[in-house]
Amino acid sequence: MNVISLFMRYQSDMKAVEQALLDVFGQEKTTLKESATHLLKAGGKRLRPMLALLGARFGNRQSSDVLNIAVPLELIHMATLVHDDVIDEARTRRGQLTVMAKWDARTAMYTGDFIFAHALRIACTIRNPQLHQILSLSIVHMCRGEFAQMRRFFDLNQPLIEYWRRIKRKTALLIAVSCQLGSMAAGADEVVSSLLYQIGYDIGMAFQIMDDLLDLTGTEKQIGKPPGNDLKQGNLTLPVLLALRMPNLRESLISGIAVIKETQSPSAIKQVIEIIKTSGTIETSREIAERVIARALSRIAQLPAQKERDDLIHLANFVINRSN
Amino acid sequence: MNVISLFMRYQSDMKAVEQALLDVFGQEKTTLKESATHLLKAGGKRLRPMLALLGARFGNRQSSDVLNIAVPLELIHMATLVHDDVIDEARTRRGQLTVMAKWDARTAMYTGDFIFAHALRIACTIRNPQLHQILSLSIVHMCRGEFAQMRRFFDLNQPLIEYWRRIKRKTALLIAVSCQLGSMAAGADEVVSSLLYQIGYDIGMAFQIMDDLLDLTGTEKQIGKPPGNDLKQGNLTLPVLLALRMPNLRESLISGIAVIKETQSPSAIKQVIEIIKTSGTIETSREIAERVIARALSRIAQLPAQKERDDLIHLANFVINRSN
Repeated sequence: MNVISLFMRYQSDMKAVEQALLDVFGQEKTTLKESATHLLKAGGKRLRPMLALLGARFGNRQSSDVLNIAVPLELIHMATLVHDDVIDEARTRRGQLTVMAKWDARTAMYTGDFIFAHALRIACTIRNPQLHQILSLSIVHMCRGEFAQMRRFFDLNQPLIEYWRRIKRKTALLIAVSCQLGSMAAGADEVVSSLLYQIGYDIGMAFQIMDDLLDLTGTEKQIGKPPGNDLKQGNLTLPVLLALRMPNLRESLISGIAVIKETQSPSAIKQVIEIIKTSGTIETSREIAERVIARALSRIAQLPAQKERDDLIHLANFVINRSN
Repeated sequence: MNVISLFMRYQSDMKAVEQALLDVFGQEKTTLKESATHLLKAGGKRLRPMLALLGARFGNRQSSDVLNIAVPLELIHMATLVHDDVIDEARTRRGQLTVMAKWDARTAMYTGDFIFAHALRIACTIRNPQLHQILSLSIVHMCRGEFAQMRRFFDLNQPLIEYWRRIKRKTALLIAVSCQLGSMAAGADEVVSSLLYQIGYDIGMAFQIMDDLLDLTGTEKQIGKPPGNDLKQGNLTLPVLLALRMPNLRESLISGIAVIKETQSPSAIKQVIEIIKTSGTIETSREIAERVIARALSRIAQLPAQKERDDLIHLANFVINRSN
C-alpha cells in the first residue's frame, strides 16, 4: 500500500471535509470570500483533517463533532499560512500567488483573521468544552512558535533547542491535537487519545524537519515555491544550524548568510545551499527525522490492532520519504 | 451621579478584571509579553468588561464565568486594535506608541494573534458552549466589519448603509454581546439578556458615531492620537459622508480628500475638517447618535428595576457627552 491508497481509504470522508471547507465561505459576499477560498482552492495535503478522521476511527461512535473538529483544524492551519506569508513577504504558496501577493498585506491580515474566526465558529458547535480548551491552548502555543521563529531570523548563534521548540510549536502541536481531538470527538479511550497525541507529535516534528530539508533540496515544481525561501527570510533550519557548528564551514556560511540578509540575492542563496549540501548535515537531519519516526512507530505498535494502525505506519513512512 | 462615580461602583470588580488582564501575559517569557502588555498598560476605558460586569448583576448567581467572559472581551477588543494599527499605519494609540510603531508590523500582527489566542483560551474555560458560539460568531462579524471598512477607504460614492453596517460590525456587536454574555454567565433571564444585547448594540452604535466625531473635533490630548486620522487613512465617517451629499460642498470635499489620499498632508486634512465643521453635519451626526441613545433609554426602561438600570442610563448619556 502506498500513500495514495492510504489517502484513498479516507476519500469519502475527506470529500465531506472538502465540501465543508468550501461551504465555510460559500455565504460570504465580500472579497473575503475570494481571498479566503483562494488558498483553499490551491489544494494542500489536508493532513490535519485526515489525521482527525483517522483518529476518530479509534473511537466508538459516529459523531458530527468529528467533521466539526476536522474542518477547523485545516482552517487554523490555513490562517497561519496566510499570516506567515505576510511576514515572509512570500509571493507563491502551493504553486499559486499568495493572498499577500494577489491582493496586499492588509487583505492577507484580515483574511487570516477571518479564516481563523470561522474556524472558531465551527469548533464552537462541539458540545464538549474540553476539546475547545485543547484547541485554544494549542493556538496560543502556535502563536508563540511563529513569533519565536521571527525573533530568531538570521540569529547565527541560536541554540539548537530553539529549533526544536520552534517546530514543536509551529507544526507538531497542531498535528498532535489533530490526532487527539479526532479520537476524542469519536469517544475514544483516553489512553488511546493521548497515545495518538504523541504519535501525531512525532509525525509533526519529522514532517517539519523534512519540510525544512525540502526547502533546501527541492525544486520549485516540487515544493510550490522557490527553494531557499527559509534562508532568504533568515529562518535558519536544522541543517543550517548543524552546518554552522562545523568549524571548517562556519566562516563561509556566516558571510554567505550576511550577503543573503543584505541583498536577498538568488546567487548567494544558491551558494549557501551548495555549502550546506556538501556539509553532510542534510543527511544528518534526515537521520534525526528517521529517529523521530522510529519513536512514532514504536508508539503506533501500542495502539489497538486495527486497520488505522497500518495507515499511521504508512503515513509515518511517507513523511520521511516525501518529495513535496 | 456622574460617569466617574458610575465606574466607581464597579471598581472592585474591575480591579479583578485588571489583575486578570495582567496575569494573562504574566507567565510569558518572550517579547510577546512586552508587546502584549504595552497596549494593556496604556489604559483604556475597559468598556466591554464593565458592561459584562454590569450585565452580570441582572443574573441570579455569582460565577467565575463572569470574569472569564469579561477578560476575553477586552482582549478581543485589544487584538483588533493592534491589527487595525497595522492597517492604519498608526503611530500612537491611547497617547502611546502603537505596537506597530514601537516594534514593527510583523510583531504587531503576531501580537494581535497572540492576544486573540489567549482570549479564546480563557473564554474556553466557560462550561456553557452557547456563550462560545455567540462570542465566536461576533468575531466573524467583526472581521467582516474591519475588512469592509478597509475596502471602502476613499470610496466617495459609498451608500450610507455601508457606514451603518461597518460600525455595527466593528463596534456595536462586541459591545452588545458584552452586555448579553455577562448576563448569561450569571444566569440572567433570557428576555433580560436579549434586551441587554439590544441596549448594548445601541450604545455601541452611538459610541462609534461619537468616536468618529471626536476624530474630527477632538484635540490630540483628548483622543490620544492626532485628529483627522480617519480621513488620513480614507475611512469616511458619518459627517464626511453626509457633507459629501451637500451639492455646495461636494466638489471642494472631493478635491480636498484627493489631496489627502495623494499627499497625506496635515494641512489638507485640516482644510477638509474645516469644511466639514462648517457644513453642520457634525451636529446632524450628533443628533443621530442622540436618537440612537433615546432608543436605548426606552429599552433600558423595560429592564427590571434595579440600580444597574440607572448605571446604564448614565452610561448611555455619557456616550453622547464624552470628550475622550
